Amino acid sequence: MKHRPVVGILGAGQLGRMLALAGHNLAVRCLCFDSAPGPAGEVCEQTIGGFDDDAALRAFAARCDVVTYEWENVPVAAATLCAQQASARAAPPVHALAVAQDRLSEKTLFAELGVPVGRFAPARTRDELAAAAAHVGLPAVVKTRRGGYDGKGQMVVRSESDLVAAWAELGGHPGGLIVEGFVAFVRELSVLVCRRGDWLGQGGPSAGQKLELELGVGVGGGVGVDLGPRVRCYPLIHNVHTGGILRRSIAPAAGVSVELASRAVAYATRIVEHLDYAGVMALELFETAATASGPGEILASEIAPRVHNSGHWTTDGSVTGQFENHLRGVLGWPLGSTDTLAPAAGMVNLIGTAPTPAQVMAACDRAKVHLYAKEPRAGRKLGHVNVTAATHAELETCLVQVEALLRPA
Amino acid sequence: MKHRPVVGILGAGQLGRMLALAGHNLAVRCLCFDSAPGPAGEVCEQTIGGFDDDAALRAFAARCDVVTYEWENVPVAAATLCAQQASARAAPPVHALAVAQDRLSEKTLFAELGVPVGRFAPARTRDELAAAAAHVGLPAVVKTRRGGYDGKGQMVVRSESDLVAAWAELGGHPGGLIVEGFVAFVRELSVLVCRRGDWLGQGGPSAGQKLELELGVGVGGGVGVDLGPRVRCYPLIHNVHTGGILRRSIAPAAGVSVELASRAVAYATRIVEHLDYAGVMALELFETAATASGPGEILASEIAPRVHNSGHWTTDGSVTGQFENHLRGVLGWPLGSTDTLAPAAGMVNLIGTAPTPAQVMAACDRAKVHLYAKEPRAGRKLGHVNVTAATHAELETCLVQVEALLRPA
Repeated sequence: MKHRPVVGILGAGQLGRMLALAGHNLAVRCLCFDSAPGPAGEVCEQTIGGFDDDAALRAFAARCDVVTYEWENVPVAAATLCAQQASARAAPPVHALAVAQDRLSEKTLFAELGVPVGRFAPARTRDELAAAAAHVGLPAVVKTRRGGYDGKGQMVVRSESDLVAAWAELGGHPGGLIVEGFVAFVRELSVLVCRRGDWLGQGGPSAGQKLELELGVGVGGGVGVDLGPRVRCYPLIHNVHTGGILRRSIAPAAGVSVELASRAVAYATRIVEHLDYAGVMALELFETAATASGPGEILASEIAPRVHNSGHWTTDGSVTGQFENHLRGVLGWPLGSTDTLAPAAGMVNLIGTAPTPAQVMAACDRAKVHLYAKEPRAGRKLGHVNVTAATHAELETCLVQVEALLRPA
Repeated sequence: MKHRPVVGILGAGQLGRMLALAGHNLAVRCLCFDSAPGPAGEVCEQTIGGFDDDAALRAFAARCDVVTYEWENVPVAAATLCAQQASARAAPPVHALAVAQDRLSEKTLFAELGVPVGRFAPARTRDELAAAAAHVGLPAVVKTRRGGYDGKGQMVVRSESDLVAAWAELGGHPGGLIVEGFVAFVRELSVLVCRRGDWLGQGGPSAGQKLELELGVGVGGGVGVDLGPRVRCYPLIHNVHTGGILRRSIAPAAGVSVELASRAVAYATRIVEHLDYAGVMALELFETAATASGPGEILASEIAPRVHNSGHWTTDGSVTGQFENHLRGVLGWPLGSTDTLAPAAGMVNLIGTAPTPAQVMAACDRAKVHLYAKEPRAGRKLGHVNVTAATHAELETCLVQVEALLRPA
């Protein structure tokens, strides 16, 4: 084959693994980079190096057309260094990574863009924490601004003594803290959006010209070629977390008004447009209860500048899965249809211990097993199971059968 | 992970590549074996060795739980040797491979099982060829009994002089010849069937016990466990060949009566049951024209003891694709649903020269590109494009847009 695009992935976890698997179908060569071997290394070439090893990162990026991330805590300096290599660009853009790594920047951005968000205030000292809590009101959630995931690095505070405990636990965190108003949500939703990088007309050997070759339009002839919509969204997803870890996702989220769903899409689109984003982004949302004064609202919680666990069902439930569309988006290729292939689709995470594939298959003949080939460990995501069904009720039956395998006998 | 089944694939072509990709999701480790590097070697471990190198084959099979084939001309001796390794079994069974490699055995089997087949007769000498042609009647097709594929090793004979030419061209073939009645078909159909190997209760460390562990039923407790249907079929497929090479497939084949479709399924099922088959098998059929005396008939043409080009659409168009179901079948795991995910699904082969992924994507946003990362060469299958659609008319629109990219500008 003449030209095979090379996508470098910072991180070698299961998201990188699934990106690389999607790449094989498109003859896109994925390379992954991480500080220790990971599940992606089984399906693509893996470079082991520190995220602070500039020489290793430069050598890695020099081999890539695009460098992307499968882990939102990739150091911004590492991503920046990759983006500065002549042959490579970084996508999503480094500033999107930076925003997503800081809960304060993230929530400030929501507010600036008119995306509804709960009350929040920053705190770097014990006094600022008290002031922030007073501003936001109790109950509230104290979080580290940086580095938390899966429920780690946060505490709910309901009283003054909780606040003392929160400071004792989290106060020393180098990135500072944020206090967020406690949102009494009825459920958690997410929307996955994909935006196509517009590399045409952006000179240099790494982007515009390569894309023109890929489109067969001749160098310099690509500007104005119709590559379809810049932005495509998957349907709104209903997510269930326990212990801070995502357990299951269902799409489309049932009982969502068309008006609310289109607002969620509008918010996600506004964010990716503002960030001049390329690739898949997840926007996590809280849905609040309807009250006497009006219907339920949605509040933005956070963004993930990468493919997302709540979109795993798209591999089996959508015309184009999130992993393929992320690659298409970061390469500047036309995005694939995000139409769903069944009236209801869902996913169950396999956490800590996983049933065998044969057990899942025996439980439900529509269950699609995705294992990451990781060693079992408490709380670790070892795989997931996707299901498509004709109705939400049928979907539920199958998901429950799979979930029954996760309980100790 | 405690136990990861290992499937050895004899052959390292694109079918092996797609089997290995399906394996990664199930944490099934695929290994491939071929006499030269092939596209499968990019996505799984590849052993280079001759199919007559007994030591290399033994060492390969010793690492596998099951050995399967992605190429129907794998020497029977090589498959037999693999099947004799203590740790391995061969699936599909070696006798199915042997039958499929000999057009005479294949057609004799059809006749014995009451599967309709055109007239045929064997020929090893010039005189036998004349007698066979007289028995079958002209026009007829003279074929080598062994080794032909994609239209190679066969000639249509319409006259005595054609017969002379056919003997001159094919007469020396070591496996002998077969003369088949010329079937005036209106179209070519195929049915893909998958059968689950029933390894429970079949002792030894390689099969029954491992499957019991995989099912979590405890050693010796597996007999009688309900693993679902032994046999599952995909809907009838309409195939279009040009120059002896498959160009496109559409499923379900339009305008097929329920009665005819269920007969095709019954024939395929009869064959896999008779062969005690495990894995995916393709049955290729001819549909003849309706006449004044009755409706069109179907005649069996050949079987392929492996995943099949006409089933590539199942990866994107079925709940469970043929590659995954083949792995499930040969491992004795419960088969996945073969329900289709859209009212119409289809595939176009990319032959000789392939458009770039970006060109295909720009042509149709529902097109799913599958490239094999092979060097272009005239007549070579370089990839395929799958499409799902709400109607056959919509499907046709998208297939035509993709096919337009295959013509020289």
